[in-house]
Amino acid sequence: MQFKDREVVAVGELPRKYERLAMEPSGIITLTTDFGLLDPYAAMMKGVILGINPHARLVDLTHNINAGSISQAAILILEAYSFFPEGTVHVAVVDPGVGSNRRHIGIEAGGHFFVGPDNGIFWPVMEANRHPKVFHLTRTRYFLPSISSTFHGREVFAPVAAHISLGIHLSEMGNTILNPVRLSIPHPRSKGHTLSGQVMRVDNFGNLITNIRRQQLESFLKASQPVITVGKLRLNKLSATYSDGEEGEVLALINSSNLLEIAVNLGRASGCVGLSSDEIIGTQVKINKAS
Amino acid sequence: MQFKDREVVAVGELPRKYERLAMEPSGIITLTTDFGLLDPYAAMMKGVILGINPHARLVDLTHNINAGSISQAAILILEAYSFFPEGTVHVAVVDPGVGSNRRHIGIEAGGHFFVGPDNGIFWPVMEANRHPKVFHLTRTRYFLPSISSTFHGREVFAPVAAHISLGIHLSEMGNTILNPVRLSIPHPRSKGHTLSGQVMRVDNFGNLITNIRRQQLESFLKASQPVITVGKLRLNKLSATYSDGEEGEVLALINSSNLLEIAVNLGRASGCVGLSSDEIIGTQVKINKAS
Amino acid sequence: MQFKDREVVAVGELPRKYERLAMEPSGIITLTTDFGLLDPYAAMMKGVILGINPHARLVDLTHNINAGSISQAAILILEAYSFFPEGTVHVAVVDPGVGSNRRHIGIEAGGHFFVGPDNGIFWPVMEANRHPKVFHLTRTRYFLPSISSTFHGREVFAPVAAHISLGIHLSEMGNTILNPVRLSIPHPRSKGHTLSGQVMRVDNFGNLITNIRRQQLESFLKASQPVITVGKLRLNKLSATYSDGEEGEVLALINSSNLLEIAVNLGRASGCVGLSSDEIIGTQVKINKAS
Repeated sequence: MQFKDREVVAVGELPRKYERLAMEPSGIITLTTDFGLLDPYAAMMKGVILGINPHARLVDLTHNINAGSISQAAILILEAYSFFPEGTVHVAVVDPGVGSNRRHIGIEAGGHFFVGPDNGIFWPVMEANRHPKVFHLTRTRYFLPSISSTFHGREVFAPVAAHISLGIHLSEMGNTILNPVRLSIPHPRSKGHTLSGQVMRVDNFGNLITNIRRQQLESFLKASQPVITVGKLRLNKLSATYSDGEEGEVLALINSSNLLEIAVNLGRASGCVGLSSDEIIGTQVKINKAS
Repeated sequence: MQFKDREVVAVGELPRKYERLAMEPSGIITLTTDFGLLDPYAAMMKGVILGINPHARLVDLTHNINAGSISQAAILILEAYSFFPEGTVHVAVVDPGVGSNRRHIGIEAGGHFFVGPDNGIFWPVMEANRHPKVFHLTRTRYFLPSISSTFHGREVFAPVAAHISLGIHLSEMGNTILNPVRLSIPHPRSKGHTLSGQVMRVDNFGNLITNIRRQQLESFLKASQPVITVGKLRLNKLSATYSDGEEGEVLALINSSNLLEIAVNLGRASGCVGLSSDEIIGTQVKINKAS
Repeated sequence: MQFKDREVVAVGELPRKYERLAMEPSGIITLTTDFGLLDPYAAMMKGVILGINPHARLVDLTHNINAGSISQAAILILEAYSFFPEGTVHVAVVDPGVGSNRRHIGIEAGGHFFVGPDNGIFWPVMEANRHPKVFHLTRTRYFLPSISSTFHGREVFAPVAAHISLGIHLSEMGNTILNPVRLSIPHPRSKGHTLSGQVMRVDNFGNLITNIRRQQLESFLKASQPVITVGKLRLNKLSATYSDGEEGEVLALINSSNLLEIAVNLGRASGCVGLSSDEIIGTQVKINKAS
């Protein structure tokens, strides 16, 4: 991603063209946090949002992010956001630096809005979209009147999201910035005869979801069949769906998010790679062409 | 349940009477899945639904079905659906056969709509209602444009549910079928002096919920008192509510879903039957008349 | 809290002034239960609510209260309710006495409505607000037509909440009462040179949240620095936020709910007090002035 100067729009100087192109909010706000499902923190945020926009429609993406795991949240948001209507506001509060001098940011990217701490949580979304616009949220009139040092999700991000959903543009809430915090997310690399990626997450079904995208894999393999190596597993073809294998058979397939996935028909791939559950995420996935 | 020929309505030949009786959608869509609460899959479905019907009101029935457990989902949907307004759409995605040639179905039964895979998940609802109408969902114009082989919940069932909630009738989405996949759910049997049922689920409070319905029990017992046997327990009466017993006392009662339930006042019945937690579901429950 | 006679308003005699002051419902209903996230009980309540008020906006506070833990629910409701717009209805169903002769109550306090069993669950809210009005819900026309003995959440509290959200006033649903059940919740005490409180809950981040409020602490300490003792920990100052300490440092701070909290920057305080997880809640927190 390149932050080009011509993307920067100084507040109060909004060109006509830009104004016309400003997204209409969908009225939908999604929430991604590491609050869990017992504490009242997510509900407090929803209360604040509904106090500002009584008609906001709230969708939980998840509240079960591991405490402080910015990259886990970042990956899930990247995978999910585009299934919402354009103009949706995605709020993320995985914010171990709350109260420090980390910035609050709002982003316009790919037809969606993103609101949260400037800690890299939206970096993958910025990478995946052309010309994301990042705003440093500084206009306190869009925050709750009283701000604690420990819960900006409630006092900053929730009210900002609610105001965006009402049609206030991010450019009214602060200036654009060109240096949002980046997140070091591993990307697949092709070297010689090998395409190497990683397992990024293990889902509820024990499927191993990698960072290798369909397009990369196809342009690497061309007409060849793959040899895929993960832990002790070695797979010699791409299947189309889970039920292409016998019950219990390990399969590689391109999943519904267009990512290479290791799965077991009616079983859990996470138990078949010969690795402890702690080791699986981050494990290398190697693709070679069948000789 | 009998699927009678006179119930079959060929598309394009909808009789006037039927048209008039077509249900009004309530605008509510419930979701039952085995996705868990970390993965973004349920949120993706909600995004797709709200993209088609921005005013749909979404209610999670549960996302904590055991992976692939069609019967667990089937029982919960049967227990819950009728508490929603008529015209509600109930989507269920417990779909281990996704991508195989299993059909997509939509059902009209008991004043409600049901959408999901044709794997028996709605069979108990069909059994419980007269003249359910089952449609094979084939009109791809009601699906997402691009369909993966691994997530029909998002690409087929979510958009179909959204279209139903907007007033599109199932008869526009495919033809009726007479042979939906059945689910082998145990039903109580009366033989000689014994009515035998099973424990179907254990709830969050440790209550054992059986498949014996109030009406069956009453017509079996007539004026007699029951002797109820479950595992090592033997109970000699029906109580009205939990607090009818001393603290810690095991009770049998007819619960709020009109099912025989074994419970402990301020305790967990699941720990009192002398069975491991793996054994409890499916355990026989015997009723005899007190002599 | 004092229940004063002049607060009692006999039904049918509503003075003009009172009528004029009656709260407008916000249309929002929050739910707090111990139902967990598998059983269909919370969904059933939502179905009932939406059947009565199709436009009600539903927010889960939590369904993960420990089974029967009235005080855990009471504390969370107290912490969260005021972040919702005035006129919100907060329904709580932690109801081990369901079916006994415990009353059903509706409360107007602090600009909000509360509906649930008369078992102390709303006592902290009543204590925290001047002149709460408590109504004994007896008018069965606002309940579901058929009432089981085991699920008043669905048959009484859900429909009552829905009716309140439509603008029916509590005074139409029953008479005021002056003796709601109280809950024995520990309050901090100042004795000699020591202010003593307790750990009330441990949140998802391992933070220990006490019952010592900012105001009490400030008026106790005046200009002095504190010495805070919890388990084996001894802390000599109040920090402003988590990141005021080094990574792993234990801190005391006033949290976003204005309560004294023991936390660890990027870690879990619950593992640092030298107590087992069973012992932490209820542990004494002592404040002295630094000499």
